[in-house]
Amino acid sequence: MQVGLIGLGKMGFNLGQNLLDNNHSVVAYDLNQKAVKDMNKLGAQATSNLEELIQSLAKPRVLWIMVPHMVVDSVLSEITPLLDEGDIVIEAGNSHYKESIRRYDELKGKGIYYLDAGTSGGMEGARNGACYMIGGDQEAWEVVEPLFRDTAVENGYLYGGKIGSGHFLKMIHNGIEYGMMAAIAEGFEVLEKSEFDFDYEKVAKVWNNGSVIRSWLMELTENAFSKDPKLDGIKGVMHSSGEAKWTLETALDLQAATPVIALSLLSRYRSLDTDTFNGKVVAALRNEFGGHAVEKA
Amino acid sequence: MQVGLIGLGKMGFNLGQNLLDNNHSVVAYDLNQKAVKDMNKLGAQATSNLEELIQSLAKPRVLWIMVPHMVVDSVLSEITPLLDEGDIVIEAGNSHYKESIRRYDELKGKGIYYLDAGTSGGMEGARNGACYMIGGDQEAWEVVEPLFRDTAVENGYLYGGKIGSGHFLKMIHNGIEYGMMAAIAEGFEVLEKSEFDFDYEKVAKVWNNGSVIRSWLMELTENAFSKDPKLDGIKGVMHSSGEAKWTLETALDLQAATPVIALSLLSRYRSLDTDTFNGKVVAALRNEFGGHAVEKA
Amino acid sequence: MQVGLIGLGKMGFNLGQNLLDNNHSVVAYDLNQKAVKDMNKLGAQATSNLEELIQSLAKPRVLWIMVPHMVVDSVLSEITPLLDEGDIVIEAGNSHYKESIRRYDELKGKGIYYLDAGTSGGMEGARNGACYMIGGDQEAWEVVEPLFRDTAVENGYLYGGKIGSGHFLKMIHNGIEYGMMAAIAEGFEVLEKSEFDFDYEKVAKVWNNGSVIRSWLMELTENAFSKDPKLDGIKGVMHSSGEAKWTLETALDLQAATPVIALSLLSRYRSLDTDTFNGKVVAALRNEFGGHAVEKA
Amino acid sequence: MQVGLIGLGKMGFNLGQNLLDNNHSVVAYDLNQKAVKDMNKLGAQATSNLEELIQSLAKPRVLWIMVPHMVVDSVLSEITPLLDEGDIVIEAGNSHYKESIRRYDELKGKGIYYLDAGTSGGMEGARNGACYMIGGDQEAWEVVEPLFRDTAVENGYLYGGKIGSGHFLKMIHNGIEYGMMAAIAEGFEVLEKSEFDFDYEKVAKVWNNGSVIRSWLMELTENAFSKDPKLDGIKGVMHSSGEAKWTLETALDLQAATPVIALSLLSRYRSLDTDTFNGKVVAALRNEFGGHAVEKA
Repeated sequence: MQVGLIGLGKMGFNLGQNLLDNNHSVVAYDLNQKAVKDMNKLGAQATSNLEELIQSLAKPRVLWIMVPHMVVDSVLSEITPLLDEGDIVIEAGNSHYKESIRRYDELKGKGIYYLDAGTSGGMEGARNGACYMIGGDQEAWEVVEPLFRDTAVENGYLYGGKIGSGHFLKMIHNGIEYGMMAAIAEGFEVLEKSEFDFDYEKVAKVWNNGSVIRSWLMELTENAFSKDPKLDGIKGVMHSSGEAKWTLETALDLQAATPVIALSLLSRYRSLDTDTFNGKVVAALRNEFGGHAVEKA
Repeated sequence: MQVGLIGLGKMGFNLGQNLLDNNHSVVAYDLNQKAVKDMNKLGAQATSNLEELIQSLAKPRVLWIMVPHMVVDSVLSEITPLLDEGDIVIEAGNSHYKESIRRYDELKGKGIYYLDAGTSGGMEGARNGACYMIGGDQEAWEVVEPLFRDTAVENGYLYGGKIGSGHFLKMIHNGIEYGMMAAIAEGFEVLEKSEFDFDYEKVAKVWNNGSVIRSWLMELTENAFSKDPKLDGIKGVMHSSGEAKWTLETALDLQAATPVIALSLLSRYRSLDTDTFNGKVVAALRNEFGGHAVEKA
Repeated sequence: MQVGLIGLGKMGFNLGQNLLDNNHSVVAYDLNQKAVKDMNKLGAQATSNLEELIQSLAKPRVLWIMVPHMVVDSVLSEITPLLDEGDIVIEAGNSHYKESIRRYDELKGKGIYYLDAGTSGGMEGARNGACYMIGGDQEAWEVVEPLFRDTAVENGYLYGGKIGSGHFLKMIHNGIEYGMMAAIAEGFEVLEKSEFDFDYEKVAKVWNNGSVIRSWLMELTENAFSKDPKLDGIKGVMHSSGEAKWTLETALDLQAATPVIALSLLSRYRSLDTDTFNGKVVAALRNEFGGHAVEKA
Repeated sequence: MQVGLIGLGKMGFNLGQNLLDNNHSVVAYDLNQKAVKDMNKLGAQATSNLEELIQSLAKPRVLWIMVPHMVVDSVLSEITPLLDEGDIVIEAGNSHYKESIRRYDELKGKGIYYLDAGTSGGMEGARNGACYMIGGDQEAWEVVEPLFRDTAVENGYLYGGKIGSGHFLKMIHNGIEYGMMAAIAEGFEVLEKSEFDFDYEKVAKVWNNGSVIRSWLMELTENAFSKDPKLDGIKGVMHSSGEAKWTLETALDLQAATPVIALSLLSRYRSLDTDTFNGKVVAALRNEFGGHAVEKA
């Protein structure tokens, strides 16, 4: 199937290769023309701007957008005037599901189909077999399903129903991911502070073989310790990219109690601070009522 | 290798079969003589009391205790007087690591070896390939290693070093398990309260194929939903068996911040209450200062 | 000073009395004309619609809006066309500070001043001495300051600076309030589950006399227990009115780690559920891997 | 009433003055003889060792122990052999309530009364009017009640019943205190990270006048900011002295869900770390699956 691929970053480039491996015809575009050339060498048709991309595609067109979520609206505003009724736009980045619903409504008015697809599995998944969650109109879904089936691992895609369901599932997936990562990390924190002297790579390895907590994240933990046994080379600063925040905000809107997901996120925020104002307040209060010494800044 | 197996419950019986499958010679005892007979039919030597068990074993004896952690001291007090210098006792239940260190010290004085082994993987693991974490004196470990190697999955055992390290690793494993389970469960809670209508078995399935959160616990989630799509048949009451509590208590002793593990445990406790006194206090206070209506009991 | 008071609910009516007591001239309006009549009997000028209210005020007009935050925009859309350059609108309900900034910007274009005022102290405070936090243009603030000075307790008002600062301070105040209430309530929860048999009114009383945790909330706790010693008459269902949610959402936007405020809110949400889906998932998982019994629904 | 006062530290010395002010006869002892001399100048009888102290007291003796909780057993082991049936020992430090029950049981066997008293209000309270929670046998309580009545603020003491209840109430008091302090501190953390520029002393002041969150802790917050407007001089390192940890451990034993108290404690522990191992693990995992950059140590 012919597909117009917009975005050849870490995820998009790997996906392009994956599509080509599966005998799909890829027409590629990225602001970074170096990436477009590299993709072209692998068999994709190169284009130098979005207009050229749109005009290179047979109708009804199928477009796959794989760009940072802040850029989606800008891409859409450029391509929408060039699209025709019946074209299908897949947006497979990490957008907020409410944004996807809004974009769907906007394109719907012009007879253009819009599917929202959450993609999991990291870069390696994009290259060799990803995991997809997709939402949108069923008639459009049925057209593009082969693209997902071919680039996913076996059983690695789910059509979740109406628009927004794809990014909603991906958002919740990431919320769970934050909680799982925090649980693993806290466990190793206690090991590190304990009286024992464990080889963490071996610990992660044994937990990956037969235990209740065996998981891909624990395998990655094993990998990480195999490279740096005590992680001495890196700082414990935990950045985040938004989806767990959205999960928590959604939970608040739904009045769903999700303390573990909440704390996995707040712990990341805390790690960004080298000192905290709330800590100063507590230290000052202890000094006020009990005369407890404070540490000077 | 000949091993005296004490305890033929859910875990011990399965382990006995596993040992027999791997050509070890099992001398079995349990208070429940029905279980002993069943084990005997599978090839184990039956004994009707602990004294008979001890006397049936060649010296140096190897004993494997697989009983609830509250019963370990009682078993030890009965068998210790019958044991000889150089005998090896393996305790593979869910004991607190400090208890294992204490028991080790007590048996050490009599020249008896004591190994603490944490066992993960559930009943199926015990039967077909478990995951073990073991602590204690290395010279004893080297004698009994074949028992663990043969009944574990490949790479599914780790000698963690000094006494206590086996149960410590298992304790932390369970702490992580609580956090992971809570993360998964909170994710589905948000799905359930959302505007979407997902098939949870399919959701768990897609997350098990290629996603970042693929894991054995997610596979079990898939199994659970395959049997009861909305879990309508069960109550959300979450019991606990102690190890996550020990993990948190240990974290407190070590001044390790483990909010996710803490909240995964407190959420379980909360689920045991149908109403809460703290809720009454907050409701009463809102009424006091703001005139907000309370719900009558 | 003459002031047009819009909204005679629990808070607005008490405030009206407070203004009258302090020799301010109140022109009152509420959809509920019964409340308007009652206010009139106390000395206020009654009006039967917003147009009449606006026309009854001398220019530059001072308006004080005391309505639920969902209704503010509707009131503003009705009165704005009737206002003149230099008029001053005070909005003293529980609006989101970003809404106040937006409204300020809208009225600014028409030369109308807009002040946002957070009000604390409950109904009794509104009647006898409230606590105010106010934001907006300083020149408008200086005109209306007497209204706040006269109806607040001594030192009970603060001009916080630019628009939004009033409702921002009130929002944070409520976030702290949630945390404090939860802390008190959790303490009594442990007392209630303990082996001791305390008289909670006496406990709250002693904690109000000389202890570190003496506070108005503890006094209210004492009051509540004096009326219902074990709070047997009420359910532990904890509703919430939005400000702690806004505090947490703001904290997330600012990447500020506020675990205590987060959990005080999530505990309220949890109390709204009699059973939880996340609990079902955890119970099902325990059954899957360990054969632990579930409770049937 | 004559009382033997053991321990003249920050709390004990102030209490001694308070007792003298109220016309009680104080026989004082401390390892630090300088403190004893100072107390003597104020009117107390000085003693140079515990034996002398005991022999200086009329029978039945009343002893008030005000020493760090780690030292209580050592003091008791020294004085117990010197005491007689009917003597009364008050222990008013921050002991764990289970320790108080154990000590009571030990002294009970010798006919000696033991009362456990929790003391709140800080140093100033000890000097001018403290808050006490007391447990133990009622007949002993009735003898010594005047000591508490005279040195407490009005209504500032509560006999809670059986032994342990005094320190239990004090423990819970401190758990609540931790939660309240954390709530206040988190609120100011959000203010500090916000777009506004508040004067924190004024904020704390307005919140102390008429607001729902007015409290002694907020007054202390005001004091602290009056001395150092942004707390620039101190670090946000929050030490703890044990009682909130005991509260949480007790809550875990009672299966009481106390998330706010738990997090107020874990946040303190987190503040002791300049970097965290759990943060390293999460950062490493993000790098493993998503190629997200880590910060180098």
